[in-house]
Amino acid sequence: MITGKNYIGNSRSANGNTTYKTFNPKTNTENETVFTEATSEEIQEAVNLASEAFKTFSTISGAKKATFLNAIADEILELDDALIQTYVSESGLPEGRAKGERGRTIGQLRTFAKLIEEGSWVDARIDPAQPNREPNPRVDLRKMLVPIGPIVVFGASNFPLAFSTAGGDTASALASGCPVIVKSHPMHAGTGELVAGAIVKAAQKTGMPNGVFSNLNSSGIEVGQELVKHPNVKGVGFTGSIRGGRALLDLAAKRKEPIPVFAEMGSVNPVVLLPKALETKATTWAKTYASSITLGTGQFCTNPGLILGIKSEHLNTFIHTLAEEIVQIQPQCMLHPNIHSAYHKNKTQAQDQQNVKTVAAINTVVAENYATQAVASVDGKTFLENSTLHEEVFGPFSLIVKCENEAELEEILANLEGQLTGTVISEQNEVATHANIVKALSNRVGRIIFNGVPTGVEVVPAMLHGGPYPASTDSRFTAVGRDAIKRWVRPFSYQDWPNELLPDELKNENPLQILRLVNDEETKAAL
Amino acid sequence: MITGKNYIGNSRSANGNTTYKTFNPKTNTENETVFTEATSEEIQEAVNLASEAFKTFSTISGAKKATFLNAIADEILELDDALIQTYVSESGLPEGRAKGERGRTIGQLRTFAKLIEEGSWVDARIDPAQPNREPNPRVDLRKMLVPIGPIVVFGASNFPLAFSTAGGDTASALASGCPVIVKSHPMHAGTGELVAGAIVKAAQKTGMPNGVFSNLNSSGIEVGQELVKHPNVKGVGFTGSIRGGRALLDLAAKRKEPIPVFAEMGSVNPVVLLPKALETKATTWAKTYASSITLGTGQFCTNPGLILGIKSEHLNTFIHTLAEEIVQIQPQCMLHPNIHSAYHKNKTQAQDQQNVKTVAAINTVVAENYATQAVASVDGKTFLENSTLHEEVFGPFSLIVKCENEAELEEILANLEGQLTGTVISEQNEVATHANIVKALSNRVGRIIFNGVPTGVEVVPAMLHGGPYPASTDSRFTAVGRDAIKRWVRPFSYQDWPNELLPDELKNENPLQILRLVNDEETKAAL
Repeated sequence: MITGKNYIGNSRSANGNTTYKTFNPKTNTENETVFTEATSEEIQEAVNLASEAFKTFSTISGAKKATFLNAIADEILELDDALIQTYVSESGLPEGRAKGERGRTIGQLRTFAKLIEEGSWVDARIDPAQPNREPNPRVDLRKMLVPIGPIVVFGASNFPLAFSTAGGDTASALASGCPVIVKSHPMHAGTGELVAGAIVKAAQKTGMPNGVFSNLNSSGIEVGQELVKHPNVKGVGFTGSIRGGRALLDLAAKRKEPIPVFAEMGSVNPVVLLPKALETKATTWAKTYASSITLGTGQFCTNPGLILGIKSEHLNTFIHTLAEEIVQIQPQCMLHPNIHSAYHKNKTQAQDQQNVKTVAAINTVVAENYATQAVASVDGKTFLENSTLHEEVFGPFSLIVKCENEAELEEILANLEGQLTGTVISEQNEVATHANIVKALSNRVGRIIFNGVPTGVEVVPAMLHGGPYPASTDSRFTAVGRDAIKRWVRPFSYQDWPNELLPDELKNENPLQILRLVNDEETKAAL
Repeated sequence: MITGKNYIGNSRSANGNTTYKTFNPKTNTENETVFTEATSEEIQEAVNLASEAFKTFSTISGAKKATFLNAIADEILELDDALIQTYVSESGLPEGRAKGERGRTIGQLRTFAKLIEEGSWVDARIDPAQPNREPNPRVDLRKMLVPIGPIVVFGASNFPLAFSTAGGDTASALASGCPVIVKSHPMHAGTGELVAGAIVKAAQKTGMPNGVFSNLNSSGIEVGQELVKHPNVKGVGFTGSIRGGRALLDLAAKRKEPIPVFAEMGSVNPVVLLPKALETKATTWAKTYASSITLGTGQFCTNPGLILGIKSEHLNTFIHTLAEEIVQIQPQCMLHPNIHSAYHKNKTQAQDQQNVKTVAAINTVVAENYATQAVASVDGKTFLENSTLHEEVFGPFSLIVKCENEAELEEILANLEGQLTGTVISEQNEVATHANIVKALSNRVGRIIFNGVPTGVEVVPAMLHGGPYPASTDSRFTAVGRDAIKRWVRPFSYQDWPNELLPDELKNENPLQILRLVNDEETKAAL
């Protein structure tokens, strides 16, 4: 049952006066439950509990933490249709998407469970003593990754499950041994509360310390700010706008003790259409991109918002076909009236810039909160000079840049802001002759794609979801895949520490049978 | 020959008007060479060259970069006595230390050469396509670490070789594929120029692009600030004071595109004396610590500046013996008059705090720039309440805190700022019964030591040289050991990229025979 209360550790609490409701964009009506924003005292209490919980949770074995993560997955599945219906009513997204995202969320939890149960992820390194070394004996040194402390996770508007309450940030932080305090996203507070309840139940069933998880309601920015400023909070995970992410980054940088902020923010995900590929497959790619631009109503951080090609009749064919195809697609509902109005404002702003030509637009009347997809085009020179055109339009919109020549294309790529992804559409042997383009694009992105679409982010070890600023605040880490756990840890060295008091990961006998770097060699052998 | 000029890439240049000389603290006289500070134009030129060099240097093979690093080591050895004598004349440190530090510097360069020649450090991960997966086929994803761009390295006053021009920061950045611009330390500009010349020679001999390395003179903070603010600079390495490091961190955080700053800053390196160890070995440990406190005139970031014990007659014995021993040690010369005067100011400030008792001090007259070591003591309550006493006194000084009981000791540890190291002095079985003390200490440090001294930082994979803020600005990375390379890289993913165009590290056939994570399994096998 959704109560509208916060979870302060295992307890429900609603002492505040600020309340709000979620909204069903499809029916254009408010949902029923009244949510109560967390008070300063409740925030303080959640952080205190998390700090206390950290003392034990940080040393619990990987196997035991794995039972916790798996129990969370089980409890989420137990929520069954109640979760799916709440998700749908708070997002306007279809049931199929809700189930798919639940599957992804469950999958992430189980993947991290498997990772920490196996244990090698801690990057154990052992350099045994050399008592007879000259001129001085060498000490024994052993190093492994340890959790950094309580983490604040901000729910994301566009992924009520996979990047929110029990999403990738929470799963990876808990896996690492860090307690988590979620700043629930106000647009899907009910979904958040249900999942939070599942996490709390799992924590209790598997004997985790109270405070290992809290879920705080908030309708504005204050709760998040207070959390990020709290001296006992040691890291932040965020998925959302550049403005929001940068504000948190700045706040964290100004602390007496600065803390890492992993904000996955804006990206226009440039797509480069090479000339020969356009010659032979302009129509096919145009159809593919009509789908990719409108997928999920364009509400993905990897949505292709910028398409670049060199002027030619084939580029015109691509544009023409894309325009024809995209208006055939049924307009879809957006997540929330606020997101819908921002989309229309930003889209119109882009369309209204000098030399920008709208090449496809829906002119029929659509239901409230439904997005009308659009495609516009502009010449390369204008694009280079107008930074407004570099900004993300969150929704089913894409801008096509018609470059004079390859040099202009390269210059544009070199001057783009950091991006999550970059895509090259090419004939099989064509890309090899455009190394400069690939190099310029690679330098601005986290993931480069050959003949595909940027939408779709596989949860595998080789995924890098992140990129140079402002795609993310820290390009050295990924928000998706097993390496996401590395955001919440620091290496820690033991010097000459008694074997029996070392963590199992570093003991001579290697009781966990993990892969370790011993004397510069990777091995699972005991010392 | 030392010319006093900057190296802007491979060219010597001295267009500025600001000049300065280095100082021999032992003879208390200026050295001869006049150094010319880099101008804004020279800074700009160095960064431009570095950005250009990055385009090729970032893709040069590990094997080729290794020949560059090994050539730097060779060229440094070629400098022979000229380097040692310049080092000595600019630091007041003895010849033996100069040679030892040269050995460490050479060792670091060769270690990184070996690491990149082997190649597995790039953390390659491969998840092959699954074209038949339902409901959607899975794409092919491959990920590895790539360099982030031009890096600025600040020379450190206390390590003219190992943490300066060709020190650990430079060696690891070059190894990763990042060009380096060194902001030379004004106290040892001649040593810096000699080593810079060796690097430039090595770059030319091994065919590295011009601009892969520059060395800029500076007497104040402006050159460094300009470098850190430059949009084409992508990372910063620094070893020095908290004030200096924090200023750079703040500057980098305010950039349009924030960049990582790895500043290794202050630390008092707390040492906990457990009761039983004091009972049996107070005298032995006191002697050991008299040496550790005065080693290198206390000018190490791992100098034990804080010793904590619970009040007892044995603690008194320790203090008494330490006092007796430390005054027997011959006072030594400090690096520079500025460092000497800061030491005496900070030492006196600590000694003058309420309830602080000086227990050992040298009262005889010593030569100019020589440090008189001292030890003081204070009660736990005073220490807890007076944050001035938590500050590092850079030099041969240590403060002993006499705690009322174990609870007070634990409270003090929990309230310490972040530290590079923490040490526990214990009887073999004693530490197991003080888990709370160990836990509180571990939470504040990067490396924990059993029955030893914090001075001495082994260059091995298991070393963590860093720690929670303000020991370093980013506790997730180390400044010493092979993992230091991870500061200058970001992961990068290829999706469905043609095999023949992938970097060797990610090709199906695994031509470099490196260890890779393929389908979640570590293997050197080809696909």
